[in-house]
Amino acid sequence: MRQSQLFTKTRKEIPSDETSKNAELLIRAGFIHKEQAGVYSILPLGLMVVSKIKQIVSEEMKSVGSTELLMSSLQSKELWEKTDRWNDEKVDVWFKSQLKNGTEVGFGWSHEEPITSLMTYHVKSYNDLPVYVHQFQNKLRNEVRAKAGIMRCREFIMKDMYSYSTNEEEHMNFYNKTIEAYKKVFERVGLGGNTFVTSASGGVFTDKFSHEFQTICDAGEDNIYVHKDGKLALNEEVFNDKTLADLNVEKSDFEMKKAAEVGNIFTFGTKKCEELGLYFNDSDGEKKGVFLGSYGIGITRLMGVLAEVFSDDKGLSWPKEVSPFHVHLVRLGVNGTTVSFADKVYDDLKSNGFTVLYDDRDLRAGEKFADSDLIGIPVRFVISDKTVAEEKIEVKKRKESESEVVSLDVALKNL
Amino acid sequence: MRQSQLFTKTRKEIPSDETSKNAELLIRAGFIHKEQAGVYSILPLGLMVVSKIKQIVSEEMKSVGSTELLMSSLQSKELWEKTDRWNDEKVDVWFKSQLKNGTEVGFGWSHEEPITSLMTYHVKSYNDLPVYVHQFQNKLRNEVRAKAGIMRCREFIMKDMYSYSTNEEEHMNFYNKTIEAYKKVFERVGLGGNTFVTSASGGVFTDKFSHEFQTICDAGEDNIYVHKDGKLALNEEVFNDKTLADLNVEKSDFEMKKAAEVGNIFTFGTKKCEELGLYFNDSDGEKKGVFLGSYGIGITRLMGVLAEVFSDDKGLSWPKEVSPFHVHLVRLGVNGTTVSFADKVYDDLKSNGFTVLYDDRDLRAGEKFADSDLIGIPVRFVISDKTVAEEKIEVKKRKESESEVVSLDVALKNL
Repeated sequence: MRQSQLFTKTRKEIPSDETSKNAELLIRAGFIHKEQAGVYSILPLGLMVVSKIKQIVSEEMKSVGSTELLMSSLQSKELWEKTDRWNDEKVDVWFKSQLKNGTEVGFGWSHEEPITSLMTYHVKSYNDLPVYVHQFQNKLRNEVRAKAGIMRCREFIMKDMYSYSTNEEEHMNFYNKTIEAYKKVFERVGLGGNTFVTSASGGVFTDKFSHEFQTICDAGEDNIYVHKDGKLALNEEVFNDKTLADLNVEKSDFEMKKAAEVGNIFTFGTKKCEELGLYFNDSDGEKKGVFLGSYGIGITRLMGVLAEVFSDDKGLSWPKEVSPFHVHLVRLGVNGTTVSFADKVYDDLKSNGFTVLYDDRDLRAGEKFADSDLIGIPVRFVISDKTVAEEKIEVKKRKESESEVVSLDVALKNL
Repeated sequence: MRQSQLFTKTRKEIPSDETSKNAELLIRAGFIHKEQAGVYSILPLGLMVVSKIKQIVSEEMKSVGSTELLMSSLQSKELWEKTDRWNDEKVDVWFKSQLKNGTEVGFGWSHEEPITSLMTYHVKSYNDLPVYVHQFQNKLRNEVRAKAGIMRCREFIMKDMYSYSTNEEEHMNFYNKTIEAYKKVFERVGLGGNTFVTSASGGVFTDKFSHEFQTICDAGEDNIYVHKDGKLALNEEVFNDKTLADLNVEKSDFEMKKAAEVGNIFTFGTKKCEELGLYFNDSDGEKKGVFLGSYGIGITRLMGVLAEVFSDDKGLSWPKEVSPFHVHLVRLGVNGTTVSFADKVYDDLKSNGFTVLYDDRDLRAGEKFADSDLIGIPVRFVISDKTVAEEKIEVKKRKESESEVVSLDVALKNL
C-alpha cells in the first residue's frame, strides 16, 4: 500500500499515563490507539500483525482437529451460577450490566460455561466425542489495574480452544498434541527460542493439571527458573526441592528470568460438564460426565510481547512471519525517472507476491528512515536519484546496520 | 469436511420463545445457537457463511479505498458526553458498566465518536484527507425487545465504514461511490433483485441526508413502496404527494411491501467533528471542520435475511456465493467399493478447489436427505451402491426437484 494512503502518522508524543515499552512503540508507530487505561483500538498496521498471528494460530489449531466457532460476548447469569462462577467474590473480572427489564447480563471473560452448555445439544453418545472447538474472541475483563500496555488489557483478542473427551486418556492425548501445536505457533511467530513450556503443577497430574507457555521478556509479570541447558524451565510455584529432586536437577543450575505468559493449557476434568449437564452414554450404555480441557493464546498480548522482544532504541523490528508487510519501499527524490523506477519496483514486488509499504511521500530522507525504523518492517528497499542512475536499489535489513546496493533481480532473489 | 467430524447435529426442537423463521431454521440446521433472547453464538456452519459475507463486503469496501481497523468495544463516558450521546435519554441502547474504581464505561453500539477522536491524532491538514476506514465489529445494543431472530439482536457483527472529507462535494463523491459498492455487495450475496436503495430524506440534501438498502422480506420491520417498474422504491416517511410530484410518478403505480434494512449510509456533515475537535487546515490556511459520513451493513443480520429469503418448507437454500460449502457429498451405503468411490470423489472435489461437506455418516438415506435439505448447500452429489456400479453420481440442485445421474467429469464441469 502507498504510505500516502495510510492515514496513521507516526507520533512523537505518547499518552502521559503510558509506561510500557510495547504500548509506547505500538502507539508511536501507529499500530494501536489508546482509548482508555487498558483499552486499545487496533489500527491498520496493527490489524495486519494480528491477522498474521491469527492465521498461524488458526492453521495450528486446525492441524489438531479443531473447528472454529464464535461465541457471544453477552452471558446469562443462570448459566454461570450453575458452576458458581457468577459471584464477584469467585470471579473478580466480570463486567456486568442490565437489560431494560432489569435482567442482569455479563460480558464474556472466558467461555467454558456457554460452550459446555452448547455441547449438551449436540453430544449424547461416545460416538459424538471427542469434540474440539476454538474461537478468536474479544474478551472483556474488569482488571483492577490494567498495566503492561497491550499485554494486560481490559479488552483483548484471545484464541480459546476447548476439548471434550470421553476419558482422561483421550484428553491427555489431545492435551499433548496441543503442547506440540503451541510450540509450533511460538516458533512460527519468531518466539521459539525465548519460549518455555512450564508446568504449574510440577508435572503431577490433577484436575488442575496445566502448563504455561512463558516467553522471556523484561516486561513479563512472572518469574521463571531456566535451566542452563536452555531446555527446561520451572514456574516459581513449583521451583522447590521436591520438584528439583523429582527431575534430578541442581538448584544452582537455574537462573531466574522475567517472563510473560503467552499461552496456557488447562485440564478441567469432568466436574464442570457435570455441573452443566453435559453427559454422554458410553459404549456399554453407562452415563458419564464429559472430560473438559481449555487452551488459550492471547493474540493481542502476543503482539505486545513481540513488540517488547523485537525492538531497539529506534523502534519495532518484526519477525518476517508477522510483519505487516514484507518490504518497506522508501523513495527518496521526486524527479520523474526516480518516481517511475520506484513505481515499477512497487509493481514488480506486488506481482511477485510480496506485500509492500511504499513510502511515496515527499518528506526528508531522515524523516522517512526514522519512520521506517520505527515501523520495523524487516527489509527496506531505498530508491534515490543516485541508485536509479545505476538502475539499482539499496537494500537494508532492519536488524543489520550495513546496507548493500544491488540490482532489482538480486534484491528480489534475496527476499 | 467430513460430516462425522462436524459436532453440530441438526435439531428437531427449537427454543420455545423463538418465533422467527430465520432463527428457527438456522438453529435447527446448526448454524447458530441461542444464548438468550436476542443473543446468538455462531456455530461452524454459520461462521463459514459469515466469513463469505465478510469477504465480499471487505473486497467492495477496499475497492472504494477504505482501510480496515478494529475499534474497542469499551467506550469512555467523556468522549460521548462531548456529542451528547452518553445520556440514556438521548441514546437508549447503551449497555453500561463500571470499572473497579467506579468509573463508568459503555459498550460500543456505534463508533463515530471514538473513530473521529482517533482521527484528531492523524489528520491536521487537507493533505491528510480524505480518510476512509471500516471495521467488522461486534456491536452491543440494549434493545428493549429483541425479535426477528438474528435480524435484530442485542449483539451482532456489523461492518461500519466512516468517511472524513474536506468538503461536501468530496463527501458526496465518495457517498455515491459507496452506493454502487453496496449494490455490488447485495448482488454478490444473491439479493440484488430483491434489494432497493431508498432515500430516507426524499432526495433532499440535508445534514441528515441518508439512504437505506431495503430487501423485500416478509419478516422485515419496514414498509417500502415499490414502483411497478421494479427499479424505484420509496420509504414510508417520504411516500407523499410532494415526493411523488418531484419524481413525476403516480401513486397508483406503487405497491407496499415488507422489507428489511440491510444497509444504510448517512451524512453527518461537520458538526460531530467540530464537537470532537477534528479540524484541518485548508490549502489557504483556514481552519475547517472535517465532513463526516458513516456507512453500515449488518453482517449477521444479512445472514438472517438470506435465511428468510432463501428457504422453503424443507430448510435453507443458500446462494452459491455465501453457501458454507460448494457441494454436499452424500454417501449412501457402507460397502467397500462405495466408500472408496465416495472418498475418491471427495478428494477430487477438494483438489479441484471446491469446498465439500462429506456426509460419511452411517444413517438412513431419508435422514441424510432431510439434513441435506435443511442445511441447504446448493448442489448435492449422491453416491450409492447403485450409482457406483455405473461409476456415476446423482446430482441434485437444492432449488430443483429433479436430479440427474452423470459421470464425475460431467458433474465437476457443471459445478
